Amino acid sequence: MRTDTELAAQMMQRIDALAAISDEPGRLTRTYGSPAMRRANDLVAGWMRGAGMTVEVDPIGNLIGRYPAAKPEAKTFLLGSHLDTVRDAGKFDGALGVLVALACVQHLHETETRLPFALDIAGFADEEGARFQSTYLGSRVLAGTFDFGNLKRTDASGVTLREAILRFGGDPDALHGARLDPERLLGYAEVHIEQGPVLEEQGLPVGVVTAIAGQTRIAATLTGQAAHAGTTPMPLRRDALLAAGRLARDVETIAARHPGLLATVGQMEAPSGASNVVPGLMRMTLDVRHAEDGAREAACELLEITARFVACHRRVNLEWHTVQAERAVRCSAELTKLLKAAAAAHAPEVLELPSGAGHDAAALAAITPVAMLFVRCEDGITHHPDESVAEADALVAIRVLVRFLELLAKKHG
Amino acid sequence: MRTDTELAAQMMQRIDALAAISDEPGRLTRTYGSPAMRRANDLVAGWMRGAGMTVEVDPIGNLIGRYPAAKPEAKTFLLGSHLDTVRDAGKFDGALGVLVALACVQHLHETETRLPFALDIAGFADEEGARFQSTYLGSRVLAGTFDFGNLKRTDASGVTLREAILRFGGDPDALHGARLDPERLLGYAEVHIEQGPVLEEQGLPVGVVTAIAGQTRIAATLTGQAAHAGTTPMPLRRDALLAAGRLARDVETIAARHPGLLATVGQMEAPSGASNVVPGLMRMTLDVRHAEDGAREAACELLEITARFVACHRRVNLEWHTVQAERAVRCSAELTKLLKAAAAAHAPEVLELPSGAGHDAAALAAITPVAMLFVRCEDGITHHPDESVAEADALVAIRVLVRFLELLAKKHG
Repeated sequence: MRTDTELAAQMMQRIDALAAISDEPGRLTRTYGSPAMRRANDLVAGWMRGAGMTVEVDPIGNLIGRYPAAKPEAKTFLLGSHLDTVRDAGKFDGALGVLVALACVQHLHETETRLPFALDIAGFADEEGARFQSTYLGSRVLAGTFDFGNLKRTDASGVTLREAILRFGGDPDALHGARLDPERLLGYAEVHIEQGPVLEEQGLPVGVVTAIAGQTRIAATLTGQAAHAGTTPMPLRRDALLAAGRLARDVETIAARHPGLLATVGQMEAPSGASNVVPGLMRMTLDVRHAEDGAREAACELLEITARFVACHRRVNLEWHTVQAERAVRCSAELTKLLKAAAAAHAPEVLELPSGAGHDAAALAAITPVAMLFVRCEDGITHHPDESVAEADALVAIRVLVRFLELLAKKHG
Repeated sequence: MRTDTELAAQMMQRIDALAAISDEPGRLTRTYGSPAMRRANDLVAGWMRGAGMTVEVDPIGNLIGRYPAAKPEAKTFLLGSHLDTVRDAGKFDGALGVLVALACVQHLHETETRLPFALDIAGFADEEGARFQSTYLGSRVLAGTFDFGNLKRTDASGVTLREAILRFGGDPDALHGARLDPERLLGYAEVHIEQGPVLEEQGLPVGVVTAIAGQTRIAATLTGQAAHAGTTPMPLRRDALLAAGRLARDVETIAARHPGLLATVGQMEAPSGASNVVPGLMRMTLDVRHAEDGAREAACELLEITARFVACHRRVNLEWHTVQAERAVRCSAELTKLLKAAAAAHAPEVLELPSGAGHDAAALAAITPVAMLFVRCEDGITHHPDESVAEADALVAIRVLVRFLELLAKKHG
């Protein structure tokens, strides 16, 4: 039987092994349905079997490991996180949650412990939305909230999600049947890297999440008039790039003025641009987040009005499209109480904090109570190769999750 | 024998025929060395032969038609323009100059007229630099000023110019030998669409160019820190996109404050961008033009200082690379005097104006006197499918160029 310190060391090795599986040479990019995703699923499936779990892949490609309960008719508690990544990603975002859960099940398996509930671990196939620009595709299938309109979405090569599911060996027409039965589910708990600077500032290894901020994604297109860069007088230009730049500045100003609001222009490009042409077309994306839905919705209205003002002033046309809007999600008071008690046993102090990032827990909250544990992140760096979690903090996360499951077992025993 | 009105009508049909030859379906894009360039060369070569010319293709792919002089030992006068285009181009930029010259030679051929000098027409293979981001590649080979370092430039697919020349059937090692002998050359004249609004504002069909503005192309890279869009507080961000947007704004402000200065950010992108990531890297291009070299050079220094200020203020790293710097070129006083006299015979008034755009004439000026005739452009629109020249104005251009050649013949007769 491995000690928890050995489990943490093994988990860190597994993080590295997963990080070596990428769609791109030299950097970590694992998008939905890619060959790298298949290899990642296969690798984790092997580890799951080694921890006494049976393994399934559902119709969208979520990897699901099952550790049986003490009694066959028992309900199920779900652990997990996602196995996809953003482009040029860090190695802990998503993978940490799956592998901490796996370390806990391995501990149960090696100590021959059965709980009064079955324990499932989900490795979700798409949380980041890097390929199809839509998040929670994996966890929404389990939650039964998958929007079937998503099947028509296309990636950068024009491949639809429907085709991508088929190519991955899944079945787009069976997604509905993959929904978990809420009656059979006790809840969902997810461990995740904080992806922000708060725990580090407070000197704490882990923290308990109170709520997941709502998020709106907007696609904006600005259309001016392409013109020759050498002959078109500055005052006669209808330069879409300058309009986009101005809007990006206004987005920042608005975010700075409204407490708790995060607003980001993540992509901006002149699709037909050339160095000697005044850009006639710009595409940009906006990401808007706030823990209060009303504040986020008001911010989106303000941003749209501002964009229309910039477009008028700059004599360009504006298309403004809300791609996605997620409401804020509150974590379960009951599960969070257990998680706090578990954390109190292994950390000097328990900090409660909201999550600015979306997580699969937000999708699962539609059908079951959810709880989340954040693990300290170095320098707040995430979605970047420098993303880092200390092994000592991963060990605390494993201990807290094991303790949480023990407390949950006591409650349901 | 065709009348000049018929020649103008035929020339407009040929403009349409050339515009149908493109690298991309549904829009006109004809970049260096592409299959479309080969088909364009073949089409124009046929028309040249029909006008009594012999045809050669030089080692970089410039199409050269030769119309003999009255006496074999005579010198040569060169006409021409370029046959490549920007992406999603208009149909007159470049092609007009080649086809107006061809209409003039056709007139000479059909009237069985020989001049006291040979008349060559060059259809240059690359003036826009859309594929390799470097202008005048074609005309510089004839001028003997081709920079052989350009052979290592790569296109978006990683193909070097050296490979592209070889694939096109050319010979990168023979470029030096393709240089024209300045002793055998009387001069160069180019007809070109104005690509600006001045002639239209003045109600004139054509204008005579006094000088070609100098141009500096700059590639700037801004490196901040990629970060999670949902968890990184606004004040802690090192957002490269916001820095780039701010710099674009400053570029515009500087151009507006300095008379005669044109400054354009033509491309701007977050190469690893995603909608939910604070951009850590931005690439942008700057195009800076002025008819006075000192003013342009001072503007470039001011822009770089400004960029460094923005980079410091925004806590991002700046790389600033001057990709290309072209000095302003004055047209030949002698040839321009003849061109003005020719224009005076066919236009109500002769306007002299500088060219804000670069042209092959600027490259040829290194070895021979040059003159340029601008043709009125509708709404100043260019580098765009709506680019338009009226047939009546094309007719004036043909008449002026024929008259110019007659005056030149008288001088050299």
